[in-house]
Amino acid sequence: MVKSNLIFRQLFDSDTSTYTYLLGCEKTKDAMIIEPVLECVARDLKLVNELGLNLIYGVNTHVHTDHTTGTGQIKKSFPNCKSVLGANSGGKADLYLNDGDKLLVGDLTVECRHTPGHTLGCFTFVLHEDRIAFTGDAVFVRGCGRTDLHHSCAKTLYHSVHSKIFSLPSDYKLYPAHDYKGMSVTTVGEEKVYNPRLTKTVDEFVQIMSNLKLDLPRRIDISYPANLMCGIQD
Amino acid sequence: MVKSNLIFRQLFDSDTSTYTYLLGCEKTKDAMIIEPVLECVARDLKLVNELGLNLIYGVNTHVHTDHTTGTGQIKKSFPNCKSVLGANSGGKADLYLNDGDKLLVGDLTVECRHTPGHTLGCFTFVLHEDRIAFTGDAVFVRGCGRTDLHHSCAKTLYHSVHSKIFSLPSDYKLYPAHDYKGMSVTTVGEEKVYNPRLTKTVDEFVQIMSNLKLDLPRRIDISYPANLMCGIQD
Repeated sequence: MVKSNLIFRQLFDSDTSTYTYLLGCEKTKDAMIIEPVLECVARDLKLVNELGLNLIYGVNTHVHTDHTTGTGQIKKSFPNCKSVLGANSGGKADLYLNDGDKLLVGDLTVECRHTPGHTLGCFTFVLHEDRIAFTGDAVFVRGCGRTDLHHSCAKTLYHSVHSKIFSLPSDYKLYPAHDYKGMSVTTVGEEKVYNPRLTKTVDEFVQIMSNLKLDLPRRIDISYPANLMCGIQD
Repeated sequence: MVKSNLIFRQLFDSDTSTYTYLLGCEKTKDAMIIEPVLECVARDLKLVNELGLNLIYGVNTHVHTDHTTGTGQIKKSFPNCKSVLGANSGGKADLYLNDGDKLLVGDLTVECRHTPGHTLGCFTFVLHEDRIAFTGDAVFVRGCGRTDLHHSCAKTLYHSVHSKIFSLPSDYKLYPAHDYKGMSVTTVGEEKVYNPRLTKTVDEFVQIMSNLKLDLPRRIDISYPANLMCGIQD
């Protein structure tokens, strides 16, 4: 935690257990927000303004089903802020990502890695200089996102995580989109050893995921269709 | 967030909105925990073990009234872990702090600053090398701890914060013991400009604090007497 060029904030929505991330460039004050939550936009924009940041990207790792994104609302306050989604996410956005694309936020370089499985269009964002990655619902602290909803595939998730996330250096910190136990961060090294699902064989993983029998997210009927449009591409 | 010698984790108890902090030395694996919560000890010790850390200090910034400390429970698993409290906190502990004391955790040096006001025995812990401080209930993100309970004094809190915390360099990150809005961290610079209470004059601050009229913490009758003993000094 020595000084770097990165302004970094982790924010939490306790209602849906969603982490929102604010990443800014100390030098240029350009910034991006990942996974903004509609109900928290006022809080987040107050902080953005207090820190003197200029939001240029409103990013979702994927089209969420459990909360409504704040991207559309944010674009009203920051008209030059581009909404960003994976190219094959099915949702509308100003900018569509393909595997290997890079987002530039001032002096920060954000590598976009396509990590499908939880959904078809999931992305993980890596800042190599700061040795951190934002994994969305691909990897949680000692867990992972469900694979029984829209365009989910457990086998695909397993291969995404192992080839695109666990292949990062062990000390890289991983910041998930959700946590339900008060954990805020993990590392590649920890999850490669202690993740109770992703350390199994692919067949065992598929078996585990197919037996979860989770209830549907309580807001899916509202949030999913809203999130398909919340990038509000004109 | 460039690599340093510090292993750092922020953990959250959603029931009492308490942040617990785990600080470890990458080289020696010695570690300290700040504000452990009794109900979260199993989670915290699992993480401590997974990270291969050896807890040598269980620290509370003060005798809390809103949650029961996990220090006593932790000492059962780590018998060499010393409980730590301020010398004039009124609580029992293995080690009592005075202003200016330093705790050594492997290669980490933790400066202990006496910051009374919320209680008589409150301490703030500063890691200069990592430019971070743990402020307990002295400074919250855009707030501060109440000053109407045991041995509280608003005027004393104001002077503690201004002389011992706001005197740190502006970029130092401040990690509080609590947050109720999903904010995880702030900086000295931000609070000196945006804290709605502590930016006022001392007289205005005293007035604001005396008009809060907060309910008593719901667990005060259990947690306060327990916390006076939870350091379990023999």
